[in-house]
Amino acid sequence: MTTISFGSDNHAGAHPDVLAAVVAANTGTVPGYGDDELTGEAVAMMREHFGADAEVAFVFNGTGANVVGLQTMVRSFESVICAETAHINVDECGAPEKFLGAKLVDVTTVGGKLTPDLVDAARWGVDDPHHVQAKVISITQSTELGTVYSLDEIQALSSYAHERDMYLHLDGARIANAAVSLGVDLGELGHASGVDVLSFGATKNGALGAEAVVVLRPELVAAMPYIRKQAMQLSSKMRFVSAQFVALLTDDLWKRNAVHANAMAARLAAGVEGVAGVQVTDVPQANAVFAILDPRAITALQAEFAFYTWNESTHQVRWMTSWATTEDEVDTFVTRIRDVAPTYA
Amino acid sequence: MTTISFGSDNHAGAHPDVLAAVVAANTGTVPGYGDDELTGEAVAMMREHFGADAEVAFVFNGTGANVVGLQTMVRSFESVICAETAHINVDECGAPEKFLGAKLVDVTTVGGKLTPDLVDAARWGVDDPHHVQAKVISITQSTELGTVYSLDEIQALSSYAHERDMYLHLDGARIANAAVSLGVDLGELGHASGVDVLSFGATKNGALGAEAVVVLRPELVAAMPYIRKQAMQLSSKMRFVSAQFVALLTDDLWKRNAVHANAMAARLAAGVEGVAGVQVTDVPQANAVFAILDPRAITALQAEFAFYTWNESTHQVRWMTSWATTEDEVDTFVTRIRDVAPTYA
Amino acid sequence: MTTISFGSDNHAGAHPDVLAAVVAANTGTVPGYGDDELTGEAVAMMREHFGADAEVAFVFNGTGANVVGLQTMVRSFESVICAETAHINVDECGAPEKFLGAKLVDVTTVGGKLTPDLVDAARWGVDDPHHVQAKVISITQSTELGTVYSLDEIQALSSYAHERDMYLHLDGARIANAAVSLGVDLGELGHASGVDVLSFGATKNGALGAEAVVVLRPELVAAMPYIRKQAMQLSSKMRFVSAQFVALLTDDLWKRNAVHANAMAARLAAGVEGVAGVQVTDVPQANAVFAILDPRAITALQAEFAFYTWNESTHQVRWMTSWATTEDEVDTFVTRIRDVAPTYA
Amino acid sequence: MTTISFGSDNHAGAHPDVLAAVVAANTGTVPGYGDDELTGEAVAMMREHFGADAEVAFVFNGTGANVVGLQTMVRSFESVICAETAHINVDECGAPEKFLGAKLVDVTTVGGKLTPDLVDAARWGVDDPHHVQAKVISITQSTELGTVYSLDEIQALSSYAHERDMYLHLDGARIANAAVSLGVDLGELGHASGVDVLSFGATKNGALGAEAVVVLRPELVAAMPYIRKQAMQLSSKMRFVSAQFVALLTDDLWKRNAVHANAMAARLAAGVEGVAGVQVTDVPQANAVFAILDPRAITALQAEFAFYTWNESTHQVRWMTSWATTEDEVDTFVTRIRDVAPTYA
Repeated sequence: MTTISFGSDNHAGAHPDVLAAVVAANTGTVPGYGDDELTGEAVAMMREHFGADAEVAFVFNGTGANVVGLQTMVRSFESVICAETAHINVDECGAPEKFLGAKLVDVTTVGGKLTPDLVDAARWGVDDPHHVQAKVISITQSTELGTVYSLDEIQALSSYAHERDMYLHLDGARIANAAVSLGVDLGELGHASGVDVLSFGATKNGALGAEAVVVLRPELVAAMPYIRKQAMQLSSKMRFVSAQFVALLTDDLWKRNAVHANAMAARLAAGVEGVAGVQVTDVPQANAVFAILDPRAITALQAEFAFYTWNESTHQVRWMTSWATTEDEVDTFVTRIRDVAPTYA
Repeated sequence: MTTISFGSDNHAGAHPDVLAAVVAANTGTVPGYGDDELTGEAVAMMREHFGADAEVAFVFNGTGANVVGLQTMVRSFESVICAETAHINVDECGAPEKFLGAKLVDVTTVGGKLTPDLVDAARWGVDDPHHVQAKVISITQSTELGTVYSLDEIQALSSYAHERDMYLHLDGARIANAAVSLGVDLGELGHASGVDVLSFGATKNGALGAEAVVVLRPELVAAMPYIRKQAMQLSSKMRFVSAQFVALLTDDLWKRNAVHANAMAARLAAGVEGVAGVQVTDVPQANAVFAILDPRAITALQAEFAFYTWNESTHQVRWMTSWATTEDEVDTFVTRIRDVAPTYA
Repeated sequence: MTTISFGSDNHAGAHPDVLAAVVAANTGTVPGYGDDELTGEAVAMMREHFGADAEVAFVFNGTGANVVGLQTMVRSFESVICAETAHINVDECGAPEKFLGAKLVDVTTVGGKLTPDLVDAARWGVDDPHHVQAKVISITQSTELGTVYSLDEIQALSSYAHERDMYLHLDGARIANAAVSLGVDLGELGHASGVDVLSFGATKNGALGAEAVVVLRPELVAAMPYIRKQAMQLSSKMRFVSAQFVALLTDDLWKRNAVHANAMAARLAAGVEGVAGVQVTDVPQANAVFAILDPRAITALQAEFAFYTWNESTHQVRWMTSWATTEDEVDTFVTRIRDVAPTYA
Repeated sequence: MTTISFGSDNHAGAHPDVLAAVVAANTGTVPGYGDDELTGEAVAMMREHFGADAEVAFVFNGTGANVVGLQTMVRSFESVICAETAHINVDECGAPEKFLGAKLVDVTTVGGKLTPDLVDAARWGVDDPHHVQAKVISITQSTELGTVYSLDEIQALSSYAHERDMYLHLDGARIANAAVSLGVDLGELGHASGVDVLSFGATKNGALGAEAVVVLRPELVAAMPYIRKQAMQLSSKMRFVSAQFVALLTDDLWKRNAVHANAMAARLAAGVEGVAGVQVTDVPQANAVFAILDPRAITALQAEFAFYTWNESTHQVRWMTSWATTEDEVDTFVTRIRDVAPTYA
C-alpha cells in the first residue's frame, strides 16, 4: 500500500497512455540515438507547438535538460542570472557550475520570479574582464514556488535580455501546468514570448522519465547534438523516450494532465481556506500549495501523508499535486488538516 | 517493416519481461530518486552478484555510467589509461575529459585489450608535476572489438594497478556477454578479479535504457550520490529504471539474453566461415563479428541490411547480434553474404 | 609624470629592496621550477612564520593563489561559502567556478566579514545529493571593505568549520596589512587561528608580482604541486619570484611596508574627519578608506586623482594606500578634498 | 658556484637589458592590469611584427599562453590535434584538458612535426555527435625535438585547417629560435603563414618570466580578455611583464639572443660530430641537440653537467643551449664528451 503523497509530482507514476505508447514502441529493430521514425514523429509534434524551426532534443531528466540548454548559450566567463530559489541554483548539486564552468548569479525574489529590475541590479561589471559577463536570464515556469509568470512578464524579461545581447532561458519542468494556468498553448511560452531556449518537462506531466530541450534561436542549434552527447544525455534506444512525448502530445494529454493537477491544487487550497492554523502563503497558480502551519501540526500530518517542509524556519510546507492525484486523496488530506491544524492554532 | 539490423545491439527493442516489469512498477505513488522499495530490491539483486558491500547506483546510459564511475576515482591531474579503441576514448564526445577535467592516455592495442606491459609503457612521469599522474586503468569487457579478457588477464591488470596505488575500471556495457563467454557469474568480473569500479550495461542486454555503476572499494562510496546527481544521471521516477534491473536479474534473464546474443554471433561467424571474399578477423568471443570484405560487397549488403563499416581503410565491418536477433535473421544474412561476397573475392 | 593614485595598492611599483633582490638573483644558471637554492631559502623564511610543516608554493597572482588553494580542499560537488563582496566571488571572472567546477555560495555581510551564524544559515542541504555540500569557508583578511577579522573571529570560524569536517581558507592578498593592524605576526593568521589554507599576498605589499599558497593541513599537501602546475601557476624561472619573498621577509620589510600603508590610510581618514560632505563609512583598519561624497565632488576629485567609485548607487568611493604612498600625496589629496567636498555638502 | 647546464633554456637567468628595463619601469604609480603606457608600448612593438590587427595579451608562462590561446578557439566538444610529443600533451599536467574541457588528439610524428596527412588521419568522426570534432591543429615552433617547420610546411597545415573550418595554433615557446633558424621575421610565423593564434615565448629568450598570446583572427579577439583573467593569467602590475617585451623587441634583442642560442647548439653539435659513442639524432635546427650515448657515459657526464635524458629506453639525451650559454661552456662540455663517450663506444 502506498502513502498518499503531496511530496512531489514525481512521486506519481506514469500515465497509462504513456506506458502504452512505450509498450507499443517495442516493435523490432530500429536505428538508435534518435534516428528512428518515432523520434521524428515526436519532434514533429513538438514543432506543432513550438514552431517549424524549433530544434528539439530529447534528454533524460530535468537537470540534464537545463544544463544542455544553458550550455548552448554560455561560455565559461559568462553568467546565468536566476532566482535564488531556482532549481538550477539549489537542486542540481552544482551540475550547471560543473558542466558550464560558469557562475550562476542568484537573486532574491518575491515568489520566485525575476523582473527586469532585479536582473538589472544583478547585471554589473559589463565589459570588465574582472567580472563574469551576464549572458543568460533563466526563469522557471511555473516557478519552484508555485507561481506563474504572465506572458507580459516573460516578454519584459526577453526584451530586457535581447536589448543587451543576452538570452532568455526557461526551465519548463512544469511548463504544462503553467500553460494551463495561463490558458495558452505551450508555444506561447516559447518563441512567442521571446524565450530562446527552454526545458520541456514531461516527467512530472505523466511520463516515466523524459524531458526535452527546445532551442528557438538558429545560431544555437548547431552545437546542440554535441552538447547533448557530451552531457551524457543521449539515449541509445531513443524510441522509448520519444514514445512518451508522442503520447503526451496526442489528443492534448499534456493539457488534460496539467488541468487535473492544477485543479487538485486549487481544490486543496480551497479546502483549507479559512481553516484556523493554516496560512496559505500564495494563491496557487499551478500545482503547488504553500502553507504555514504550526510545527506540531506538520509533524502530525507527516505521520500520515508524504510532503516536504519547504522552510524550516518559517514552518512553511509544500503540497504538490500531480496528474495522478485523486479528488479522494485531496479530500482525505483536507479532512485531516481541518482536524489537526486548529488544535495548534 | 523494420530492416534486419546487425548495426548495434542497441537497435533491438526491450525484452518483453523487462517491459512487463516496467508496466508492473506503475502502481501508485512512491518516493522519488531511488528511495522506493523496487530500487531497494534491484540493488539487493545486484549485490547477490557483486557482494554485499557493493555500492550500486542506477544511471541512464553507458556514457553516464562510465563518467560517474571514473569520477569516483580520479582528480583532474590524474589520468585514465585506456585502449585507443575504448568507448570512453572515441564514442563519448569527450564527456570524460569534460566532466573529469582529466586526460585519457590512450594505448594502441591488439584486439582492444590492455596488458600490464602496455599500461606500463604509458605510465610515466610518475611524481613529476609537469605530467598527469596515471591513476586508473580502464578496460572494456567485452571489448569494442568483440574480444573478451580472461579472468587471469583482468587479475594481472588489477595487480599491476593496486601495486601502484591505481584503480581498475571496467566498462561493462556488454558485461553479460563477457560473463557468458567466460562461463562465469557477473561477480567474477567484479571484486573477484580486482576490479574497483564497473559499469554494468543493461540496455544492450534487453533493457529500455538502464545502466548501473558498481563501486567495489569502500573509500570511493561516499562521494557517489553527489557525483551521480551532478553528472545529471539521477532519475526522479527511479522505479522505472530499477524495474528493468529486477527483470534482467530474475531467473537469469541477463544470462539467457547474453547466451542467445553470443550464440547468434557464433552462428553468423560459422555461417560465413570459408566463404570466398569474407575474412573474419577474430574468432568472435561475444556478440560481435568483425570481417573484411570488398567494398562493393559491403555496399551491396548494406542496401539490404543495417551494419557499420568499422574501418574504412581496411574495409572491415562490424556485425553485432543481440538478445533479439533471430536464427532466421542470421540465416537470411548469411545466405545473402554467401551470395554477394564471392562475386568480389 | 604619474597621477597621484589612491586607486589600488597595485598601482604602486615595487619596493627598491625587492627589485634589488630580483637583480641579485640573476647570477648564472640554476634549476627551474623551484628546484633552486633561492626558492629553498624563501620557503624556509615563510616557514619561520607559518611553521615548519607549512607547505609553501609560490604562484603568479592572487586569483591563482586563491584557486590553487581552494582546489586542494574541494571536489566539484562541494561548495565554498564566502562573503558576497569576496574577491573570489566578484573579481576573478569566475575563475573559481571554472577551475573548481564548484559552486560559491555567497553571503550578504556587514563589513565584508563572515560569522559562524551567517555561515550556518548558508550551510544547508547537508547529506542531500541534490545540494552542493558546504566544504570550505573562505574569508579575506584584510577584507575587500578594509575591515580586519580579529583572531577570535577567525578562531570562531575555524572551530565552526572543523566541527563540521569543513576547512577554513584565508585570502590574504593583504595579509600583511591585517597582521600589522592586529599587531600580530603573520603566523598568527595561519595555523594558530585554525586557518587550513591561505593565500599570501606579496604583490600589494611591494613585490613586482608574487603570491604564495600556504597549506597548513598535512592531508592537503600531496596534491598541491600538480594543482599548481595544472592551474598554470608554476614559474619556470622561479628564482625571480622567490627573490621577491626573500626581500619582503628580510628585516621585516613586509611589516614596514604594511605599517606605512596602514598609517597613510589612517592619516587620510584623520585628514577628512569632520569635513563637510565627506562621510567615512568605517573606521579604517587596514589600508583602505571608504567614504561617501556627493557625485559632483567625486567627479571633481577624479579629474585630478585616481580612485574608484565602489558603489555607484550610494556614491561610496574607495581610497587605497600602499607602501609607496607618501605623506605629501595624502596631504595634497586631503587639502583638495577639504576644498571640494564642502561645496556639495 | 652554478653548474654548467644544458638542461633547459629556462635554467638561464634574465638578459641584463631585460632586467634593466624592469628596473626602469619602477617609476611611480601607474594603472594596473595593462592600462599603463609601457604595456601600450610593448603591444605596439609586437604589432610591428605581427600586424596592426594582432591582438596581444601578455601572460605569465607558457602553459598559460597555450591554454588561453586554445580557449579562444575551441568549445569542449571540439578537439585539438597535436603531436604526441607536444608540450601541451605531455608537459602541462593536463592543464588544457582541465581548462578547455576538451580532448587533445595526439599523433605519432617524425621529429615532432605534424603534416596534413597525419592530421587528416586523426580527423575523423566529422559531424558525428558521438565523436569530438577536430577544430584546432596545434604545432610547436621550434618543436620539442629541436626541429623547425618551414614556412611551406606551416602554410600547408594552415590551408588544410582553413579549408575545413579549423584553426592553426602555434606554440612559440621558442619562436625566436625558429625565426632565426628560418631567417625570417617573427611575423612570418604569424598571419603570413596562416597561423591563427600563437604563443610567443619570451622567458626562454631572455626574460624573467613573460609570454604573450597573439590572436590573428578578428572573431577570436573579443573573448580574450575574459579568458585571460579567468585563466588566472592577468598580471596586476603588468608594467613589469611588459617591460620585458619592450627590452626584447628593442634593437632586435630577441634575435640576437636566439642567434646566439642557436649558434651554441650548432657549435656543440659540430664539436661532437664524429666522436665515437655519440650519435646526434638530428641535425639541430634551433637550440637543442639530441644525441644517443651509452648510459654509462650519460651517468658520467651528468655528474658534472646538468642535462636531461629524453628517452630512457633509447638512451637519448637532450642538450639545450640558451642566450646565456657561452662558447667556453660549450667547449668545456665538448671536451668532456670527447673524453667520456669513446670509452663506452
